[in-house]
Amino acid sequence: MSNNKEKHLVIIGGVAAGMKAAAKARRESSTMKITVVTDEHYISYAGCGMPYYIGDVIKDSKKLVVREPVYFKTMLNINVLTRHQAIAIDTRLKQVKVKDLERGNDIVFSYDKLIIATGAQPIVPPLPGVNLGNIFTLRTITDTLKIRTAVDSGKIKNAVIAGGGLIGLEMAENLTIRNIKVTVVELLDQILPPLDKDMSMIVQNYLAGKGVEIITSDGVKSFEGDGNTVTKVITGKRQLPADMVILSIGIRPNTKLAQDGGIGIGATRAIKVNERMETNVPDVYAIGDCAESTHLVTGKPAWIALGSTAGKMGRVAAINATGGNDTFKGILGTLIVKIFEMHIGKVGLSEREAIREGFTIESTIVPASDKSHYYPGAKDILIKLIADVASKKLLGAEIIGEGVVDKRIDVIATALTFSTTVDQISKLDLAYAPPYSMAMDAIIVAANVLNNKLLGKTIGILPRKVMEKREGGETFVLLDVRTDFEYKSGHIKGCQHIPLDKLASRFNELDNTKEIITYCRAGLRAAQAYRILTNAGFNNVKYMDGSISAWSYGLEK
Amino acid sequence: MSNNKEKHLVIIGGVAAGMKAAAKARRESSTMKITVVTDEHYISYAGCGMPYYIGDVIKDSKKLVVREPVYFKTMLNINVLTRHQAIAIDTRLKQVKVKDLERGNDIVFSYDKLIIATGAQPIVPPLPGVNLGNIFTLRTITDTLKIRTAVDSGKIKNAVIAGGGLIGLEMAENLTIRNIKVTVVELLDQILPPLDKDMSMIVQNYLAGKGVEIITSDGVKSFEGDGNTVTKVITGKRQLPADMVILSIGIRPNTKLAQDGGIGIGATRAIKVNERMETNVPDVYAIGDCAESTHLVTGKPAWIALGSTAGKMGRVAAINATGGNDTFKGILGTLIVKIFEMHIGKVGLSEREAIREGFTIESTIVPASDKSHYYPGAKDILIKLIADVASKKLLGAEIIGEGVVDKRIDVIATALTFSTTVDQISKLDLAYAPPYSMAMDAIIVAANVLNNKLLGKTIGILPRKVMEKREGGETFVLLDVRTDFEYKSGHIKGCQHIPLDKLASRFNELDNTKEIITYCRAGLRAAQAYRILTNAGFNNVKYMDGSISAWSYGLEK
Repeated sequence: MSNNKEKHLVIIGGVAAGMKAAAKARRESSTMKITVVTDEHYISYAGCGMPYYIGDVIKDSKKLVVREPVYFKTMLNINVLTRHQAIAIDTRLKQVKVKDLERGNDIVFSYDKLIIATGAQPIVPPLPGVNLGNIFTLRTITDTLKIRTAVDSGKIKNAVIAGGGLIGLEMAENLTIRNIKVTVVELLDQILPPLDKDMSMIVQNYLAGKGVEIITSDGVKSFEGDGNTVTKVITGKRQLPADMVILSIGIRPNTKLAQDGGIGIGATRAIKVNERMETNVPDVYAIGDCAESTHLVTGKPAWIALGSTAGKMGRVAAINATGGNDTFKGILGTLIVKIFEMHIGKVGLSEREAIREGFTIESTIVPASDKSHYYPGAKDILIKLIADVASKKLLGAEIIGEGVVDKRIDVIATALTFSTTVDQISKLDLAYAPPYSMAMDAIIVAANVLNNKLLGKTIGILPRKVMEKREGGETFVLLDVRTDFEYKSGHIKGCQHIPLDKLASRFNELDNTKEIITYCRAGLRAAQAYRILTNAGFNNVKYMDGSISAWSYGLEK
Repeated sequence: MSNNKEKHLVIIGGVAAGMKAAAKARRESSTMKITVVTDEHYISYAGCGMPYYIGDVIKDSKKLVVREPVYFKTMLNINVLTRHQAIAIDTRLKQVKVKDLERGNDIVFSYDKLIIATGAQPIVPPLPGVNLGNIFTLRTITDTLKIRTAVDSGKIKNAVIAGGGLIGLEMAENLTIRNIKVTVVELLDQILPPLDKDMSMIVQNYLAGKGVEIITSDGVKSFEGDGNTVTKVITGKRQLPADMVILSIGIRPNTKLAQDGGIGIGATRAIKVNERMETNVPDVYAIGDCAESTHLVTGKPAWIALGSTAGKMGRVAAINATGGNDTFKGILGTLIVKIFEMHIGKVGLSEREAIREGFTIESTIVPASDKSHYYPGAKDILIKLIADVASKKLLGAEIIGEGVVDKRIDVIATALTFSTTVDQISKLDLAYAPPYSMAMDAIIVAANVLNNKLLGKTIGILPRKVMEKREGGETFVLLDVRTDFEYKSGHIKGCQHIPLDKLASRFNELDNTKEIITYCRAGLRAAQAYRILTNAGFNNVKYMDGSISAWSYGLEK
């Protein structure tokens, strides 16, 4: 585009968003001058792959670095200045002041268009001892190499991970497979805060089975060391031996540079942008982990820093900064993580988030096979769906399990983008053959179950709510309708047992004055029992959603 | 629902659609009388799993039978009459006449609601010798057991499969892994007719590499035998040795019973139904493989018989037949098949189908990694997207490869359900972590490439069209911009070679009077070369979509 001739695009930040914007800008304009400045040594690296390099799943650190500056210079005529820190933005003069971290001098760049991609940084709490050796954050390639060196030394026996979010748990896996005893300390009463507690409890039980110790409702207070190196983590309630600590309690957007330059910050404390990725200042864009977005379910500002979002934002900003017109409407908070052999995904709103947003919700938890049950290698997944009662629209999904989770998350993400009812999900023409799904895909089965609840055809109750009733001292009949064999191999404490095929002939054993909650292995027979009892005149019956498959409070024999 | 008391629902057909409808009807109504009649011995079986039982991937035939009649009787109070063939429907008297195939007598059932789920049957062409032994179709459990017995005998050395559709190719794999030499004979000029030829050619080359002989543009004319057993297949051009023949040239809906009863047939020759699965006759529904549907992209009648559709139709008919209200809007022609390690999926319209429907289309073929390229086990997939030029809406997708295909097909299926532009696909918030996708999922990358073409930012040309130009005697420069090493390891005959990083300094070697078509390994560098040349003033340049990755016409060294 010839109108860009002699014009200068300056990009601050050289990881996912910044370099994507630079490359895309060059494709859009062959003539514009493009300069990228970054305070880091490495550019264009795969931040999301770092835990796997530490776990030696990825063997070669070079694989994490996608491109070198020389590639951008020779192939795309883009100047990339590493170890150059942007220290001030003057939006009136349209200048960026940059410090050359190697030489120490300052340089001033004039820009016609400026893209801010300053990223985010790990929160490091100012706790006593936090500067001891072997206390790390994981954000950059430099961090990664340091952690890997420590692990490779063979001297790390015990690691404490502060924070049970995605990165913390990915690190828990990757350190465990390096034969390090890992303890995760999480201040909240659950790990994986984006998920509802009922789902995260199942992950927590799974991790315990893999030898990862999980401590919730407890926070790190200080660190103690032997000389310069950490040896102990002191929490509110415990003392934990630790040769290494990973701080993964969260990140915050790097906004100071922008803020000091008069660029507006949003409700989420990230840089406020519109759909074109424009800030409140003309010709200044913000993208990636430092930029705010919009949640497509709530329509409200949201800040969820992900590499996938960074790339999309980078493209849009590049198109607009070079004279084109493109928009990025927002995000759904979609996430996926592999921890050991378990896949954990979420999209849209959790039950807790939906309620906080003011929705009156219905939800269900449904276990289902990821492939046709008779196809070798079929594995179960557990699907939680959350819907708005009034509109019958889907609000979100959480899916976990050793079966294929990411596919179903992506289907829901796509449907949520277009605003979907639960019923529409149940009618999707998804690809079916035995190696890929059941004839009715797991997500369709789950949608049907939720639709039945939304339409009042069945009344289900989540396992968590059953537990709350019990803890609240309510009396009710918890009816196990599985076979004798299943019952004997483990059942919920205090249940009554009548196998489903005997139920119709043993109504007299049931106390009709009490609420009856049926359960089985996965919910199907529980729902059948619900129907049998309701049809027989029992008028206070519920079935337990997901039943044993979703019950995370232990069984007795 | 008490208004169903004493009412009688009769269902004709006991496989996927019929039994789903029966079970769902009982869940909707505890009091309605429900009778299922089927001429088969087995009910509720997994037809789609049958090839895998023959291949011994599924070891136990019992796994294919989901439920027995006794289950439906004792658990759901549904009468299932096997070996009972419905022989006439009287819609005026609301009666079905049924022949007891074991006893020989006829029974008349009065119905209040009738659901027709008579399925489809394989087309058996009336060719000389077609009744010889070891000539099979594959449709029922009985067929499956016969084929498996023949294979287990160890006497089958050569098998000919007539028809290169989904079932034919699934059988090609499963017989090959049983050490049988398989030849597929297809009358059309390509296998997998739902796909465009450019994509099916790649599958064909892959199958050849697995030892499956594929013959296209040739049809079976007759069969010859030794005594009662087939030994030879005579085609239009060949004689093929054959100890076994599988006829998989297609299926047709079983509509005679309905048609004789005055029930309307649609444009596709399947039973015409509305969204409620109602036929033209009150209280008569049709579902599953015998019923027509609507294609959600074209809005026209479509008949694509699949178990996944059968289940959804069965639910809707059951809800409506028991006094409820539900609708099934239609299908997208979604399909997926695993052949050896390759996954082949399609959704919506192929390029050929879109053109036939009158669309002016743009398309692209894009190779991409299914996971982050640095994550162990990442594999390539090849994505073809087809869009309407006027509306920029996506019309369909074909995806093949050893990487994860089904996920991307399901994403596109979901988006097509809601009617999507190509741009909307490129902005989807899909789940990203290195084990699951690139930071920009493969489908997003492909959508971006197609969007660039739709917006006129780049001009691409499909490999097939390059070949057609060449075959049509057109002269043009075919420019290989890969490295010397790549070029020497195999390039397209007659190309000119200038590595991308040398291109800007070697413009003088190019004939600016001719059309220039650039290619590389996967299309990315070809598009870069396209931009470099266009910016340098070359005004008749295209890049080859997918380049070598999508080129199925051989290379030379």
